[in-house]
Amino acid sequence: MADLSLLFPIIILIITSTTIIFTPPTLASQQLDHLSSNRAPRFLSKHSYSIKTQQEEQQRYKYESKYFYQQLDHFSFLNLPKFPQRYLINTEHWAGPERRGPIFLYCGNEGDIEWFAVNTGFVWEIAPLFGAMVLFPEHRYYGESVPFGSREEAYKNASTLSYLTAEQALADFAVLITDLKRNLSAQACPVVLFGGSYGGMLAAWMRLKYPHVAIGALASSAPILQFEDIVPPETFYNLVSNDFKRESTSCFNTIKGLTKTFHLCRELKSTEDLADWLDSAYSYLAMVDYPYPSAFMMPLPGYPIREVCKRIDGCPNGTAILERIFEGISVYYNYTGELHCFELDDDPHGLDGWNWQACTEMVMPMSSSHDQSMYPIYDFNYSSFQEGCWEEFGVIPRPRWITTEFGGQDIKTALETFGSNIIFSNGLLDPWSGGSVLQNISETIVALVTEEGSPVNPKVIFRCYNNL
Amino acid sequence: MADLSLLFPIIILIITSTTIIFTPPTLASQQLDHLSSNRAPRFLSKHSYSIKTQQEEQQRYKYESKYFYQQLDHFSFLNLPKFPQRYLINTEHWAGPERRGPIFLYCGNEGDIEWFAVNTGFVWEIAPLFGAMVLFPEHRYYGESVPFGSREEAYKNASTLSYLTAEQALADFAVLITDLKRNLSAQACPVVLFGGSYGGMLAAWMRLKYPHVAIGALASSAPILQFEDIVPPETFYNLVSNDFKRESTSCFNTIKGLTKTFHLCRELKSTEDLADWLDSAYSYLAMVDYPYPSAFMMPLPGYPIREVCKRIDGCPNGTAILERIFEGISVYYNYTGELHCFELDDDPHGLDGWNWQACTEMVMPMSSSHDQSMYPIYDFNYSSFQEGCWEEFGVIPRPRWITTEFGGQDIKTALETFGSNIIFSNGLLDPWSGGSVLQNISETIVALVTEEGSPVNPKVIFRCYNNL
Repeated sequence: MADLSLLFPIIILIITSTTIIFTPPTLASQQLDHLSSNRAPRFLSKHSYSIKTQQEEQQRYKYESKYFYQQLDHFSFLNLPKFPQRYLINTEHWAGPERRGPIFLYCGNEGDIEWFAVNTGFVWEIAPLFGAMVLFPEHRYYGESVPFGSREEAYKNASTLSYLTAEQALADFAVLITDLKRNLSAQACPVVLFGGSYGGMLAAWMRLKYPHVAIGALASSAPILQFEDIVPPETFYNLVSNDFKRESTSCFNTIKGLTKTFHLCRELKSTEDLADWLDSAYSYLAMVDYPYPSAFMMPLPGYPIREVCKRIDGCPNGTAILERIFEGISVYYNYTGELHCFELDDDPHGLDGWNWQACTEMVMPMSSSHDQSMYPIYDFNYSSFQEGCWEEFGVIPRPRWITTEFGGQDIKTALETFGSNIIFSNGLLDPWSGGSVLQNISETIVALVTEEGSPVNPKVIFRCYNNL
Repeated sequence: MADLSLLFPIIILIITSTTIIFTPPTLASQQLDHLSSNRAPRFLSKHSYSIKTQQEEQQRYKYESKYFYQQLDHFSFLNLPKFPQRYLINTEHWAGPERRGPIFLYCGNEGDIEWFAVNTGFVWEIAPLFGAMVLFPEHRYYGESVPFGSREEAYKNASTLSYLTAEQALADFAVLITDLKRNLSAQACPVVLFGGSYGGMLAAWMRLKYPHVAIGALASSAPILQFEDIVPPETFYNLVSNDFKRESTSCFNTIKGLTKTFHLCRELKSTEDLADWLDSAYSYLAMVDYPYPSAFMMPLPGYPIREVCKRIDGCPNGTAILERIFEGISVYYNYTGELHCFELDDDPHGLDGWNWQACTEMVMPMSSSHDQSMYPIYDFNYSSFQEGCWEEFGVIPRPRWITTEFGGQDIKTALETFGSNIIFSNGLLDPWSGGSVLQNISETIVALVTEEGSPVNPKVIFRCYNNL
């Protein structure tokens, strides 16, 4: 087993030694709802590929499911019921406490933890090399880790939802791992954090806030700068649009032309939902534009944007714009050809967890510019965003809170003499890269960037690693 | 004005250049109640010298009192009423935003902020040298900064008190200073944190948790290691006892003999309260054993422990032990000779803020050993401590929470490659020094220790500084 004081540098080495940068499958999704409505933006797809179809993966990665009873509010002493936090654990390759076997902790995102576990091969594959325990704690209010006894109760109203925050989730992770280490007499075992997208943000923030709990973090596609005015609000949609433009200008123009078409669609009952449905697909496609077939969001071919554009551009001359669009979009929603019809919105109440988080602290202002974006023009308007959140949840967002609590403004100055052992990894084709850390902050807080990279599947990096 | 990139090193230089180490007047007090009862321990004296008698000091330090409306719970989105946080501000010497004038922020402790402001001369005196703004935000639930409209409502029960935590207080400071800087277009102005005792703990923790908000911290007499089993629980009372022993072994023995005497005092209605009253005085005396007259806790002569022991030892042969004790204790409680009788307990409901904090997260286990302590033998018993807290507040303490949230266990390993710009200053006669950081952690997280030092008054350091 490796010398533990060198654990984090070795992990950095493994990652930098590969020619293709590792990024765990990004969950990062679109924030598009507000383009056509006042609803709070979402992070995670509501149309995600069901995890039930991924049984093959589940069989490959073995883990036990356990539960830990957490304080509902770590930061107050209200007499609240505890809730069970699920975590997945594998100690098969762990070197144990005597040999200070490390603990690889993946920071659960906004969804069922099993989904992230089976899609984060990198962690599983490097764990044996380090004699590491693998731990996937679930994020509160997602999957099975819901307070108040059931998802229905937990999502009932603003009061029951009020403890769904990133700070509480980080405290959950810290309490869980501290307790677990104590029970295993493993206090001396170093913890390394992993995470992608929102989970990557959590990994970076956790290393900053709990340095005594974890010695380092690999934060992939983690848009911790996508708040306030740190990056221009057009960044995200410009990047999605560019991903299409670089495949085909005519494809880009067709989609851009859609806006005009929609103005004619008065008879469509739910224009907004249809627009959301299409917009989401384009954003997700940009996020999972892998060079090989994948099935994280949906079953997709390699280079899915290229495939979409092929279908759009490939229609015979004179084909109506909507027909072209639907030809293309089927690559995303129905690549296997199994679906007979599409469900535009499978979450009609909008009460999913990420909507709540976006309406409280995760306020990421996003606009769509006239010139560079293929989306309808939209200027983020905080007042109407706030109104929408009030209507949906009866809650008032705190748009400045995340940067106050976690920083972000002038991040280089703040962290160049503070903190260590954080890797921010990004592929520049990933639309979330625009809000991520793309430059080294210090010798040990570093950015790994692939120019032509989309979030790359762990399998690829591991293949590269093996070929070294 | 100094080059701002060097601001913090220069402050370190000023402090290390003096022969006597600066420690702001420590508030740190005794945790003695549990020696004789199950009540939660207190930090701050309930017999403290009234601030009303310190008008002279108040006139010396000029400030405006302002109010900022804070979220009651920064970490949840319950619909709770905001509360006014008081802060004292002085911009007289501030170089302003264009010249990046620094902001010196004293982290308010568990009491009225004016009391701390007038007793923290160091901050006032170095501010003009740096062109610094001086800011003293009050800690929530103390002084005028109480939620729910009044102290009575705020302290009504465990629910109303539940937001009185260190994490919330730090978030208050972060939100206040971020908002203030924005309003003054002073985002580029560096913030330096100051604090003593609990305020020193807050300063250190704030630098660790909010490095993007403050560039450094001077944490004086900050016992951030007085939790769990990090230091032996006998540390505090051994240090108090040693302070007496070094003045006079017979004085030490007289006080130690008191225990035996008390076993005879069956007719005293409130033995516990009397014991508390005496025990407190000894602990406070050790904390304010300055070499010159002072009036922070009470009006006291220079070297007050020496004076106490003189009176105890000076009684004619044959004087009863209790008489000696009362002769001595009068130095602390009645040095001016103005009091005709003593109030043993001026807070009969025990509902003061620190008791709550000690019964929730600030669980500092303290024992009194047989051999080295002059206090009655006592082994900290968590079960009975918990019972006492349940009886008094209806709350269950979280004794492991502070070390999970802020660290402390194996602090050198955790921070030697993480964090920067924290000075821990301590005098070894101060009984809180035992739970403080007494060794350098890294090049920029340093300990300044005076072997023979008690917490030394700012005036002294400034005198030394001027003589350089």
